[in-house]
Amino acid sequence: MTGPVTPPTFADVQEAAARIRPHIHRTPVLTSSFLNALTGAELFFKCENFQKAGAFKVRGASNAVFGLPEARTGAGVATHSSGNHALSLSYAAGRRGIPVTVVMPRTAPEAKKAAVRGYGGTIVECEPSTSSREAVFAKVVAQSGADFVHPYNDPRVIAGQGTCALELMEQVEGLDAVIAPIGGGGMISGTCLTLSAIAPDIDIFAAEPARADDACRSFRAGHIIADDAPDTIADGLKVPLKDLTWHFVRNHVTDILLADEDEIISAMLLTWQRMKIVVEASSSVPLATLLKHKDRFRGRRIGVILTGGNVDLNRLPWTGSEKGE
Amino acid sequence: MTGPVTPPTFADVQEAAARIRPHIHRTPVLTSSFLNALTGAELFFKCENFQKAGAFKVRGASNAVFGLPEARTGAGVATHSSGNHALSLSYAAGRRGIPVTVVMPRTAPEAKKAAVRGYGGTIVECEPSTSSREAVFAKVVAQSGADFVHPYNDPRVIAGQGTCALELMEQVEGLDAVIAPIGGGGMISGTCLTLSAIAPDIDIFAAEPARADDACRSFRAGHIIADDAPDTIADGLKVPLKDLTWHFVRNHVTDILLADEDEIISAMLLTWQRMKIVVEASSSVPLATLLKHKDRFRGRRIGVILTGGNVDLNRLPWTGSEKGE
Repeated sequence: MTGPVTPPTFADVQEAAARIRPHIHRTPVLTSSFLNALTGAELFFKCENFQKAGAFKVRGASNAVFGLPEARTGAGVATHSSGNHALSLSYAAGRRGIPVTVVMPRTAPEAKKAAVRGYGGTIVECEPSTSSREAVFAKVVAQSGADFVHPYNDPRVIAGQGTCALELMEQVEGLDAVIAPIGGGGMISGTCLTLSAIAPDIDIFAAEPARADDACRSFRAGHIIADDAPDTIADGLKVPLKDLTWHFVRNHVTDILLADEDEIISAMLLTWQRMKIVVEASSSVPLATLLKHKDRFRGRRIGVILTGGNVDLNRLPWTGSEKGE
Repeated sequence: MTGPVTPPTFADVQEAAARIRPHIHRTPVLTSSFLNALTGAELFFKCENFQKAGAFKVRGASNAVFGLPEARTGAGVATHSSGNHALSLSYAAGRRGIPVTVVMPRTAPEAKKAAVRGYGGTIVECEPSTSSREAVFAKVVAQSGADFVHPYNDPRVIAGQGTCALELMEQVEGLDAVIAPIGGGGMISGTCLTLSAIAPDIDIFAAEPARADDACRSFRAGHIIADDAPDTIADGLKVPLKDLTWHFVRNHVTDILLADEDEIISAMLLTWQRMKIVVEASSSVPLATLLKHKDRFRGRRIGVILTGGNVDLNRLPWTGSEKGE
């Protein structure tokens, strides 16, 4: 990434939409009369769990990869992630046929490593600590000259994520609010960017696990608060806000709502049982907060972004618990 | 049900489509580039797992319930089933506001019983044997005068199931074949009824568990063979053909293909992992046979009917096995 880091504009979202169209799915919007009755709201689920590589992250990653000038492609791209951004960047780079290196903790699930390699990515392992990750990643970039695509604090990535709300606006009329999970804030920032430009009256809610509530505390405090290693079942949402995403959260988010672990798991199970779709725990935080704060949403038309569906089907959080059917 | 039992006609399917439209979903068709690459065919999955009550069975049940003359509604409807037909008939009867009685073995899962009651159905328990079920059911009908809606050997039910293929024809052009699971043969019969009328060149394949292969053996022998209590993970497919469904199978099915238990479980897991949707084991038999008989389907456009998504999420067949991610 070169040049000063300034927030992307809506024109960047429109460019991203045209750029990534051949490489991603226009995901469907599903509804559930059961969940409408249960919440008292009218819910429109944007199914990014059906997205390429199983998550919305492929939008931002594809925008970065396919926006790279031809002269820069030889050195490839690199990132550090043990989650959906790693898969997504590997997918996009594989599709463009350029090198991609992902720094992952050696303790990351083998299935995730296999998926990155399956898309053609190279994994460099680090110890499971921030210091090791940063040292190893710096070395990778120094040696390869690869373009660093940050999982969320990158204007190309935020513009790419903004294409999701752009599609949702084309697919559903008359929304009163949109709600999405918040971790580092990439999806929420892209949503803010798009809606503030084309539908500024729509409320934007962020949903966060109570056990990783740094974005909520940042929002109330008026400055970024970062926690060290929060622990939640919603493992995509453990990372802190950064300057670019904080810019959008501070200026455009209506409120940040919290849900407890058992509420997140219940919402996830409910989604599987009633909508018959596989969603991650992180994707279930919005429904958990909708069920917890019914008064704020009653009678309103709400877009709910289901961010991903990459789940270890051998380790489901409700198995053996009392929460099942 | 009154009058002689004659096979339904395509006009019955068209009537059914108009009759049930307000009460069912027009389910989406999904595709998967991964599964296309894996099978070498172009697959179009008709998602009846997203259907009301979680399965295609609500089509036939709704057609029977909403086709009942007003004068007959007081006595309600009745059936025997411990599966999706029980849920579907209860859903449809609840929607019309007429009584519904379901005879279920006392050993049926509590979750299924709760779901039937949730839709407003009355459960009468029998012992888990055919003789007990028939005796109890005869008593229920004698006392209530209820209209018996058989799970599949009923022209109203078959005409209702035929609406699924009718939608599929409207949604996907140029199909070479359609494949669906076969148990009692209700879905396959409806598919035969519709396709033989409007697209007679399309091949119709039935997919059956090797451990409950009575339909396949019937097809080869030229007469109905019924097994006593076959055992398979695809628990919706244990029942035998009856005269009406045999009529369609014998006259219109191209072939019946078999899959082993581990192949069915692998196909089910693959569908969850790659398509991010919840499907039953019974729904996964077609994909299992497509993977087993690639040569027969290579390069062809295949409609695959995903029949249902009612799964006990606490008891997944791969949990604890080596088959996971």
